[in-house]
Amino acid sequence: MEAARTQTHQVKVGDVAIGGGAPVAVQSMTNAAMVPSDHGPVLDLAGNLKQIELLADAGCEIARVAIPNRASLATFADICAASPLPVVADIHFDHLIAIGAARAGASKLRINPGNIGTLAEVDEVIEVAGECGIPIRIGVNAGSLDSKWRDKSDWTLAERLCASVTEYVEHFNQRSFHDIVISAKAHDVLATIETYRLLSKELPTTPLHLGVTEAGTIRQGTVKSSVGLGVLLCEGIGDTFRVSLTAPPEEEIAVAWEILAACGLRRRSPELVSCPTCGRCQVDMISLAQEVERRLQKLKSPIKVAVMGCVVNGPGEAADADIGVACGRGAGIIFAGGKQIRKVPVDQIVDALFEEIAALEAKR
Amino acid sequence: MEAARTQTHQVKVGDVAIGGGAPVAVQSMTNAAMVPSDHGPVLDLAGNLKQIELLADAGCEIARVAIPNRASLATFADICAASPLPVVADIHFDHLIAIGAARAGASKLRINPGNIGTLAEVDEVIEVAGECGIPIRIGVNAGSLDSKWRDKSDWTLAERLCASVTEYVEHFNQRSFHDIVISAKAHDVLATIETYRLLSKELPTTPLHLGVTEAGTIRQGTVKSSVGLGVLLCEGIGDTFRVSLTAPPEEEIAVAWEILAACGLRRRSPELVSCPTCGRCQVDMISLAQEVERRLQKLKSPIKVAVMGCVVNGPGEAADADIGVACGRGAGIIFAGGKQIRKVPVDQIVDALFEEIAALEAKR
Repeated sequence: MEAARTQTHQVKVGDVAIGGGAPVAVQSMTNAAMVPSDHGPVLDLAGNLKQIELLADAGCEIARVAIPNRASLATFADICAASPLPVVADIHFDHLIAIGAARAGASKLRINPGNIGTLAEVDEVIEVAGECGIPIRIGVNAGSLDSKWRDKSDWTLAERLCASVTEYVEHFNQRSFHDIVISAKAHDVLATIETYRLLSKELPTTPLHLGVTEAGTIRQGTVKSSVGLGVLLCEGIGDTFRVSLTAPPEEEIAVAWEILAACGLRRRSPELVSCPTCGRCQVDMISLAQEVERRLQKLKSPIKVAVMGCVVNGPGEAADADIGVACGRGAGIIFAGGKQIRKVPVDQIVDALFEEIAALEAKR
Repeated sequence: MEAARTQTHQVKVGDVAIGGGAPVAVQSMTNAAMVPSDHGPVLDLAGNLKQIELLADAGCEIARVAIPNRASLATFADICAASPLPVVADIHFDHLIAIGAARAGASKLRINPGNIGTLAEVDEVIEVAGECGIPIRIGVNAGSLDSKWRDKSDWTLAERLCASVTEYVEHFNQRSFHDIVISAKAHDVLATIETYRLLSKELPTTPLHLGVTEAGTIRQGTVKSSVGLGVLLCEGIGDTFRVSLTAPPEEEIAVAWEILAACGLRRRSPELVSCPTCGRCQVDMISLAQEVERRLQKLKSPIKVAVMGCVVNGPGEAADADIGVACGRGAGIIFAGGKQIRKVPVDQIVDALFEEIAALEAKR
């Protein structure tokens, strides 16, 4: 832990708490293609539910679904009823969809008050969310900032995003609506960091939903999200987040959990310490580490496993892990609880490691 | 830029400057398997040179080669002579290999003074490096920390690593050797961050080589490196770094450049802003973004390209990029320099984007 977690007002999304000292919650969004109906294209019930189940299996805690039109509200209600995760409704341009989504069983609404309708229409959404007892995320993006703020060319992007969000939060609070989460995303990592630092200072009690938006495909998106969210989470900023990748949604969850683990906040699965291999290495480390990683993915316990290729750091790291192997020529020395326990030929290393892992899990 | 770059003493690794305000240098390490010889297994000349060429193509600026035995020194000399990149010799356990490597043409030595031999032997290495005019990286790892420090159980790992490095640096300085780079790596991200913050405070003028060691396979290693190095680089800490992945070395370079770009420090290739897709999206965004990414990889200019799936943030992001497309039903609107320039059917989007990119590059 780098810094004390900011203490924010806690809101509940279904049974998942956000803010107020709750664990940083992991979320993602479905992207199933729409299906034809008598009223034009609508949300795909089966496609969304299948994705939400994949997300839940991967460790997602909150699922978001975009509702593109009023004709999709009936399907959205069915999704909420069958979903194993609380469902957030993501709505743009039509306050009646937001109102319909709240009544259809959404556990949270995500709107940009600047594009959902008039202020009076925003107030109708606030009122219905209050009746339904669900929170609202006020979400602003650099790509759709209200022209009032977008054109303040002497302000930084962070200042413009923060001003826009702050104005909306004040509007909601004046209407006695306080179950708010806020987000203000940019695709630029440094702008994102600056924006959330500013938000956490200006609105210290409002839970923050972090994200580097439109971060790109897997490699670029993973790096941008890890740097941006990593810097913020290590400073104690952020109560929930979504990793945004142009990739299947469950990939976002895998990266999200790696970020939480790297920041020392939460760990869902085993940690693999594996060396990058070099000229000293006398076994096929890449295959060995991949095979160990593949088999570790089936485990849910937060144990630490080290797979090391040589005698330089191998014995030290293997002994530091719960279970480890330090490889040498044609053989590996298996360590458990800091002690060397046996030496096995290369082709038996993976099995030997998992025997010891099973023994450790049985003991725990 | 988050913070002023720490001003360090500049050292030269071949023609690449490290520290003293030079751009943060990107490095990696070969891992070609050894080949048999009359003297037992030795470095593979062709294998190492091929990897170094792949690394150079990917944007690597310094290549490191582990020299496992004295019999490999002749091959190491040949690698140095033919390499397109300056070569760092990585040596453990035998100071005579370090001395041989310096004389064989290494552009830098990387040693852990604690395992290379006696202090008198370390002094011999220092003397020969001085004669050859090459710097030395003093590299300490949590997995091979000297027992003198390892056993100080009331100290944090960062304090132990920093104490070990500081003692070595003082020893080198007493011998009037100042062309030093230091590293102190741990596989734990928070320990790594704490260690380098401490080093930059304790040794403010010594260039720092950053790394999260043994970070694991591609996903975990990318996230751990991005969080750890991202936090440090955003604070202005770090003069060169290696991303450590259990994967082919050129993957490390691709991630390294993404980290530098995310931190706003250096950019080598185009930036792709692409949305994560959602239920609003009416085109196959993942395929589209992947195809654009694939074709962008051939370009070296730092242009920004946006590929967006819908009208929420699409027009804003597309207009903000150098070249962009905001997709709608069956068509995409192409933007250049902030202006809509044409509308094309979905199957012509990629070609239209690259026509505009080519036109922009020709103009520049």
